[in-house]
Amino acid sequence: MPRTKPVIVPLNELTPGQCGDFFALLAERSRGATRDGKPFFTCRFRDRSRSVTCMVWADGPWYEVCERDWQAGHFYKLRALYGESERYGAQIEIHIIRPVADADQEDGFNPADFVEHSRHDGAAMWDGLRSLAETHIVDEPFRRLVTTLLDRHAGPFQRAPATLGKFYPFAGGLLEHTLSVTRLCLQLAEQFAARYPDLRPPLNRDLIVAGAILHDLGRVLEVSDDLVLPQPTIPGRLFGHLFLGRDLVRDTARELGDVNPELVQLLEHVLISHLALPEWGSPRLPLVPECLILHHADDLDAKLEMYVRCLSSDKADGPFTNRDPVLGRQLYKGRSI
Amino acid sequence: MPRTKPVIVPLNELTPGQCGDFFALLAERSRGATRDGKPFFTCRFRDRSRSVTCMVWADGPWYEVCERDWQAGHFYKLRALYGESERYGAQIEIHIIRPVADADQEDGFNPADFVEHSRHDGAAMWDGLRSLAETHIVDEPFRRLVTTLLDRHAGPFQRAPATLGKFYPFAGGLLEHTLSVTRLCLQLAEQFAARYPDLRPPLNRDLIVAGAILHDLGRVLEVSDDLVLPQPTIPGRLFGHLFLGRDLVRDTARELGDVNPELVQLLEHVLISHLALPEWGSPRLPLVPECLILHHADDLDAKLEMYVRCLSSDKADGPFTNRDPVLGRQLYKGRSI
Amino acid sequence: MPRTKPVIVPLNELTPGQCGDFFALLAERSRGATRDGKPFFTCRFRDRSRSVTCMVWADGPWYEVCERDWQAGHFYKLRALYGESERYGAQIEIHIIRPVADADQEDGFNPADFVEHSRHDGAAMWDGLRSLAETHIVDEPFRRLVTTLLDRHAGPFQRAPATLGKFYPFAGGLLEHTLSVTRLCLQLAEQFAARYPDLRPPLNRDLIVAGAILHDLGRVLEVSDDLVLPQPTIPGRLFGHLFLGRDLVRDTARELGDVNPELVQLLEHVLISHLALPEWGSPRLPLVPECLILHHADDLDAKLEMYVRCLSSDKADGPFTNRDPVLGRQLYKGRSI
Amino acid sequence: MPRTKPVIVPLNELTPGQCGDFFALLAERSRGATRDGKPFFTCRFRDRSRSVTCMVWADGPWYEVCERDWQAGHFYKLRALYGESERYGAQIEIHIIRPVADADQEDGFNPADFVEHSRHDGAAMWDGLRSLAETHIVDEPFRRLVTTLLDRHAGPFQRAPATLGKFYPFAGGLLEHTLSVTRLCLQLAEQFAARYPDLRPPLNRDLIVAGAILHDLGRVLEVSDDLVLPQPTIPGRLFGHLFLGRDLVRDTARELGDVNPELVQLLEHVLISHLALPEWGSPRLPLVPECLILHHADDLDAKLEMYVRCLSSDKADGPFTNRDPVLGRQLYKGRSI
Amino acid sequence: MPRTKPVIVPLNELTPGQCGDFFALLAERSRGATRDGKPFFTCRFRDRSRSVTCMVWADGPWYEVCERDWQAGHFYKLRALYGESERYGAQIEIHIIRPVADADQEDGFNPADFVEHSRHDGAAMWDGLRSLAETHIVDEPFRRLVTTLLDRHAGPFQRAPATLGKFYPFAGGLLEHTLSVTRLCLQLAEQFAARYPDLRPPLNRDLIVAGAILHDLGRVLEVSDDLVLPQPTIPGRLFGHLFLGRDLVRDTARELGDVNPELVQLLEHVLISHLALPEWGSPRLPLVPECLILHHADDLDAKLEMYVRCLSSDKADGPFTNRDPVLGRQLYKGRSI
Amino acid sequence: MPRTKPVIVPLNELTPGQCGDFFALLAERSRGATRDGKPFFTCRFRDRSRSVTCMVWADGPWYEVCERDWQAGHFYKLRALYGESERYGAQIEIHIIRPVADADQEDGFNPADFVEHSRHDGAAMWDGLRSLAETHIVDEPFRRLVTTLLDRHAGPFQRAPATLGKFYPFAGGLLEHTLSVTRLCLQLAEQFAARYPDLRPPLNRDLIVAGAILHDLGRVLEVSDDLVLPQPTIPGRLFGHLFLGRDLVRDTARELGDVNPELVQLLEHVLISHLALPEWGSPRLPLVPECLILHHADDLDAKLEMYVRCLSSDKADGPFTNRDPVLGRQLYKGRSI
Repeated sequence: MPRTKPVIVPLNELTPGQCGDFFALLAERSRGATRDGKPFFTCRFRDRSRSVTCMVWADGPWYEVCERDWQAGHFYKLRALYGESERYGAQIEIHIIRPVADADQEDGFNPADFVEHSRHDGAAMWDGLRSLAETHIVDEPFRRLVTTLLDRHAGPFQRAPATLGKFYPFAGGLLEHTLSVTRLCLQLAEQFAARYPDLRPPLNRDLIVAGAILHDLGRVLEVSDDLVLPQPTIPGRLFGHLFLGRDLVRDTARELGDVNPELVQLLEHVLISHLALPEWGSPRLPLVPECLILHHADDLDAKLEMYVRCLSSDKADGPFTNRDPVLGRQLYKGRSI
Repeated sequence: MPRTKPVIVPLNELTPGQCGDFFALLAERSRGATRDGKPFFTCRFRDRSRSVTCMVWADGPWYEVCERDWQAGHFYKLRALYGESERYGAQIEIHIIRPVADADQEDGFNPADFVEHSRHDGAAMWDGLRSLAETHIVDEPFRRLVTTLLDRHAGPFQRAPATLGKFYPFAGGLLEHTLSVTRLCLQLAEQFAARYPDLRPPLNRDLIVAGAILHDLGRVLEVSDDLVLPQPTIPGRLFGHLFLGRDLVRDTARELGDVNPELVQLLEHVLISHLALPEWGSPRLPLVPECLILHHADDLDAKLEMYVRCLSSDKADGPFTNRDPVLGRQLYKGRSI
Repeated sequence: MPRTKPVIVPLNELTPGQCGDFFALLAERSRGATRDGKPFFTCRFRDRSRSVTCMVWADGPWYEVCERDWQAGHFYKLRALYGESERYGAQIEIHIIRPVADADQEDGFNPADFVEHSRHDGAAMWDGLRSLAETHIVDEPFRRLVTTLLDRHAGPFQRAPATLGKFYPFAGGLLEHTLSVTRLCLQLAEQFAARYPDLRPPLNRDLIVAGAILHDLGRVLEVSDDLVLPQPTIPGRLFGHLFLGRDLVRDTARELGDVNPELVQLLEHVLISHLALPEWGSPRLPLVPECLILHHADDLDAKLEMYVRCLSSDKADGPFTNRDPVLGRQLYKGRSI
Repeated sequence: MPRTKPVIVPLNELTPGQCGDFFALLAERSRGATRDGKPFFTCRFRDRSRSVTCMVWADGPWYEVCERDWQAGHFYKLRALYGESERYGAQIEIHIIRPVADADQEDGFNPADFVEHSRHDGAAMWDGLRSLAETHIVDEPFRRLVTTLLDRHAGPFQRAPATLGKFYPFAGGLLEHTLSVTRLCLQLAEQFAARYPDLRPPLNRDLIVAGAILHDLGRVLEVSDDLVLPQPTIPGRLFGHLFLGRDLVRDTARELGDVNPELVQLLEHVLISHLALPEWGSPRLPLVPECLILHHADDLDAKLEMYVRCLSSDKADGPFTNRDPVLGRQLYKGRSI
Repeated sequence: MPRTKPVIVPLNELTPGQCGDFFALLAERSRGATRDGKPFFTCRFRDRSRSVTCMVWADGPWYEVCERDWQAGHFYKLRALYGESERYGAQIEIHIIRPVADADQEDGFNPADFVEHSRHDGAAMWDGLRSLAETHIVDEPFRRLVTTLLDRHAGPFQRAPATLGKFYPFAGGLLEHTLSVTRLCLQLAEQFAARYPDLRPPLNRDLIVAGAILHDLGRVLEVSDDLVLPQPTIPGRLFGHLFLGRDLVRDTARELGDVNPELVQLLEHVLISHLALPEWGSPRLPLVPECLILHHADDLDAKLEMYVRCLSSDKADGPFTNRDPVLGRQLYKGRSI
Repeated sequence: MPRTKPVIVPLNELTPGQCGDFFALLAERSRGATRDGKPFFTCRFRDRSRSVTCMVWADGPWYEVCERDWQAGHFYKLRALYGESERYGAQIEIHIIRPVADADQEDGFNPADFVEHSRHDGAAMWDGLRSLAETHIVDEPFRRLVTTLLDRHAGPFQRAPATLGKFYPFAGGLLEHTLSVTRLCLQLAEQFAARYPDLRPPLNRDLIVAGAILHDLGRVLEVSDDLVLPQPTIPGRLFGHLFLGRDLVRDTARELGDVNPELVQLLEHVLISHLALPEWGSPRLPLVPECLILHHADDLDAKLEMYVRCLSSDKADGPFTNRDPVLGRQLYKGRSI
């Protein structure tokens, strides 16, 4: 009699004591040592809504393969016994484990199921950003510089978080933040242009829009293009996203050949000074007013996302949230209006 | 034969050696002492475009009256001999001097001629600000709180500079800055309300608009209501404009009696935390997102005014401005686009 | 046959394995979640000298009532089984639980038994403070302002700690600290008045004494008037005790109507600047010498209390205390003289 | 006919155009160079109430002797023509000049006439300080340590200013400040001893009094013992008064031989930590409570002297003083009470 | 039948369940309390490569003796049952315990076996340092000062770590660091002497070499001379190694009597200013160029040791080390060249 | 009779009242306005050792040409009357003035006569630096990268100061500083390589040497290549020398094509992090030990030059220099050894 293929049960639907087949992300693999020096690994597997621990002891069956092959951020297919402990929470005992293979997609494996995403539609945001560039940058070669950069980095730009843990820390966050900042900048540019009609040269809207769209472009090189577990890259740590983004601008402008060099120079200055102060990460102070507009739009948009996320997800009793570790304060949530 | 009344010649039209009658502001009266201890006063009189010095020595004819009566910020009618010296510049020798009297208005005396003003029409700005309050604050008692405060302080609010030396340092500057910040806040509030439709309670636009309109209200008590030479007041120095403005809100709300106390409390919090950090002057950190919007609109508007003023008035050779003492940097002005 | 009423056994006298009836404070109720997302509560009940844990699991009998009704800071009557575990310490298993009722006082329930108090007699301290005001403030309306404020807030003023975790962090601490600071100020005022007899106006002793008595008055509004578990209030977090205390002064002076406005203004300035620097919490710098005296008396008294408490309670081996987290240093305790 | 001895006329009584004989302090001798490189000296001579300038040009008669011999801080007898100029103030043209000689005392020369002094009687203050040591230090050898140090440095201690330009910057200022701090410490020590009767070991009053008396002892070595023009010494700049004072204590204790070493050690610690923080000049943090008392008494006494001096000597119009450069603020002087 | 003496088994060779006799260092003894207030001790015993825990409960057999006698840093001979637990690691259950006695050396007890050492030969380093003094300090009495100080503190100087937890934190670290800094200083001194041949007086190489050799001499008094568990001393905490080292120099120079006082003064200045800034621990700024050379050699040598140790011992996956808590950064280790 | 050509007299040899022909650098041309608003220019002409002022008044003969044509940093041939005034120093009255022409070299005009130079021979330093690169960089393509960069910027590199006002502020200063830093780095690299033979990968000497040689390369683009009056450039201010130098490295490496990309990446990291901290100008922290060596060599060399220059040029009386405005301290110069 032919053996029937076992059914795939999502990890988050297993009941204590049940042994099932499921896909899971290895979210963490960290070394430890018992007090007498024996090494072990603490592994954490997860799907979208359940996270389970698996201790891999030096004298257990999985130690060698864990040390040699398993990598955080990779997906695995497991057969494992699920259990719950009051103290140690959900745990699994692995019976079989192998990396996910292409064929697993037939069984319904989809990496995107494992990732926290922006709530907004990626394609729509991307079209929105691209069309802001198309519509609002008047100088044609300069516009082409911006759209070329967007197109070349379209994939990672749409997948990346804005930051790994501060603001917009989820897939699509970079795009969502950039789109928001660009829209803010457009409005601010318009308002200030109307206020200072006599400034010579006038506020350069092309510069502001391009600066907004590209201000965090370097993030696509600063963290790995990994939807599931993005990590800082070597250039990311050695140089930072300000340098990396400005290099992309400089190289692409040189390659295109027809962009006004003065505009490129100003754009590069705007990019590296948009954090406003050396102690906030900008090697130079802003020397043109367009920087200021970008700086405030960027900072306000980032902070507001943090406030809203903190207020929306907080679970504390009482009228104040728990202390947000990035903001360093407890927000007031107990208001009725 | 009746003596003909002497003609009034503006100070700035006198030629060296000419003796004329003119009105002038005593812009400065400062004590000094010669190295052997004899006191004197250095007085500076000015009209709109010329400033002249008058040394008042202890053994001269004007010392007593200068010490006893003359006050900086007051206007005088003088008959004086005008002279120029290469080293010491324009000077006058006073023959007759008396304070300006009401009757002098017939001879064309107008204090407003002596003051630097906002380039914008005061009445139009005032109408603009008031109508923003009328239009955009939905809660009726809360709106009445704001308009009552505006109406009660309409005079000084329209005359005051935003600051004495940092940003918008000219008559009408407070109004111009407030109007600009309120418009910025309105746009930002709209954009963020659209971005975070699920936030509960949603961003409170009434709070943002009221906060913007009143954020520097305390300035009307912090400096003297003196078009010509506003000075810090005693309450201004002892308490600062954050406290003073928030007291006006608190007292007026109590007096009106029908304003939602929770809204008042939030507004007071927004006012005292809109400078964001203790070292920037805020006794508390912002605990609601509305503060952030006001803070960034305020800071951006103030800084941009400083940038534009510096770029527009700078006289330095070369592509950079002189170092702006408030901004602490030399701006880039040598760009063509 | 009538069932005899069970005897009340203090929690701290239960022996492992014993089931008893007792009163206890719910000192903490914090949410947690097992690794697979099941919520639970960790509750801590205590009496004066024993603290026990009770885990409330989602599938246990108390979860619902715990989530809905139990509140930290409230007292409960429990029937529970007491146990000790080497690792997890003292625990209880609840059989019956209900909030304390008025009738329980007949059985000996007294909330004050659960609280750490100042070692000094509250009534005596209160009389002391009040009589300092009566004796040393010469200006009658000004004295009435101070005593009125004291009388109106007599309850919370006597119950409140000076701070929740820094200095005098126990019931009655605010009063003990205030009394001590006032006595210090009196001595200092006397000494400096003698040193500077020619100062005009002389050091104002009324101002110093009133400032000392009222310098932390705002604390009564900054934390909840809860003997057992005081918590920051909403106004406390939104405005801080400097603002709140000064508002009490301002409102009461206005109400009384006969207090010298200049004295009130100086007192308000002293209150909001007594922390000396913006980064220490004062929105304004001290502009009159009386502030200095209050600032140093306050700071010295607070720091000395922390030193003495740290030295008296430290358990470390060796000549130095453990690092005090507030003071940020290890004090020297190993001296013989 | 015998030539009559010319009469000595005080410098401050000369009238313009008069040539007289007088004693004067050379208060300043600073080199300069004309724009084409010719050297000159600007010398300033003064008596108690008049200060006159004398330019010594390279091609004039006094250049050589000025360069070679004249020293700031020395007294001279001059015959000189006195003149006044509006711009350059009081000046003299020297006819004869020589250093003051012993015999000049017969003609009324007294250096003390040229110096700003403490308003208090030096001998009385000295007796006061010494008797505080005698009366309030119980441990006999420790008391002898303190009195020995006082006696050995009695001269400079009575002449020195507390600082050259910050607080008590006049002859006798060190003694006046020390006496005041010691009195403050005594009162504070008494008050705190009463508050913390259970502290073990109790607050050591001997330590506090000795610390107060000796806390600035190092000043006598930090500036030159020159009543007229004290200057920083080489050890003063290389080591600072904390080190220097503590060395005096250490050496003297070693020499006396009978002082309790633990007391000496504590005293040394109190001396080097009495400025409280490294950024304020203390290499170590205070680790015993006695330091705190000394620190606050010292800081309060110094700051109050600066406030009182600023308020008493300010000449500005209006209710606020000019900005005090050391305090960094404008004090409020316009109060009536 | 005579009982045979049990064999000594090193702690790190025991197998779970085995009971053995061994020597061990009591590395830590810290008090704890169960949640219901029962005291206990957590003791950690270790030899070179295994560390085991022993819980000493209040009702167990060892509590009294542990509280009364056991001291961290002392060695003990134990008979104990060894066990391993997945969660709590290696533990022992003590059967017999007594302090190590002299006679134990016959059984192979050697304290040095329990300590982390510099990888370099101590005697060779010491000879190296001494001969640098002999060879490179030209002034004979000054050289004698240095060698005398070295000889008098030879023992602790060779045993001490440079710091307890920052750089060179192991036995012999002070000597290794000092030798390295001295060699660096010699080279730098030579190079700069060649660069500035016209400086008067020239860079003083004697001063630089002596400063380098003695710059951390005070460490021998700042921590206890305990090879196994050095601890801060009382003078170490009250005064710090800058003061302590400079006192040794001062006292020894005075004792020797023939050292050039100007050299001693400069050396003392170099010692107390070699940390360059008050906030880095120097009470005075460097006023002679020799300080600079020492400061940079010292800082570079210390930082490089931290970098090398972090890079060599790090276990993190990926191209960056874990965050070093002292350096505050993650170093780049994933390079191939 | 033919008119004889007037003799050229150096400006610094003119005597008061003499009218002569001479070459001079226009070192400064700054606008001013008299108190009544008339514009004027203050011009400063100088040769090597004399500097003279020339006031150009609005109604004088030179105003127009001064405003239109004269430029600071250019050389002029003048015929002018020289005069000296006690108060205003050396001044000239211009009779004829024209820019220097090529033909003037025949009359002995040489711009180098007007500039402060490094005391060292430029060609020798250049050969020294180049040969350090040739000798000590082992990797051939990497060495070619360094020498190519040197050769391409040889001219400005030899002419530029290291900084405009902080250290090595004279022509040739950049080269002198770079050579010195490179030599220091070589020695330090050798010493540390010997100390840490087991580090993997070992300290990369190629990287250290290349980093040292190129660490300030960006200075050649940061200031204008003007021997006489170098000024910050636009890219210099917008980006700073760290960015500019690293771009040169990146572009040249890309062009050469054969340089190990990992080496280039490390070199770029070393360049942008060699200032160690963001607040000192480095956008990233040093993540490899080679950075540390360069940082300390650079900082020490710069500071020592400032110390030596201050000590060598100071003119103050007494044992301490005047306060150096960059170092912020008064150095000790009064030592004999």
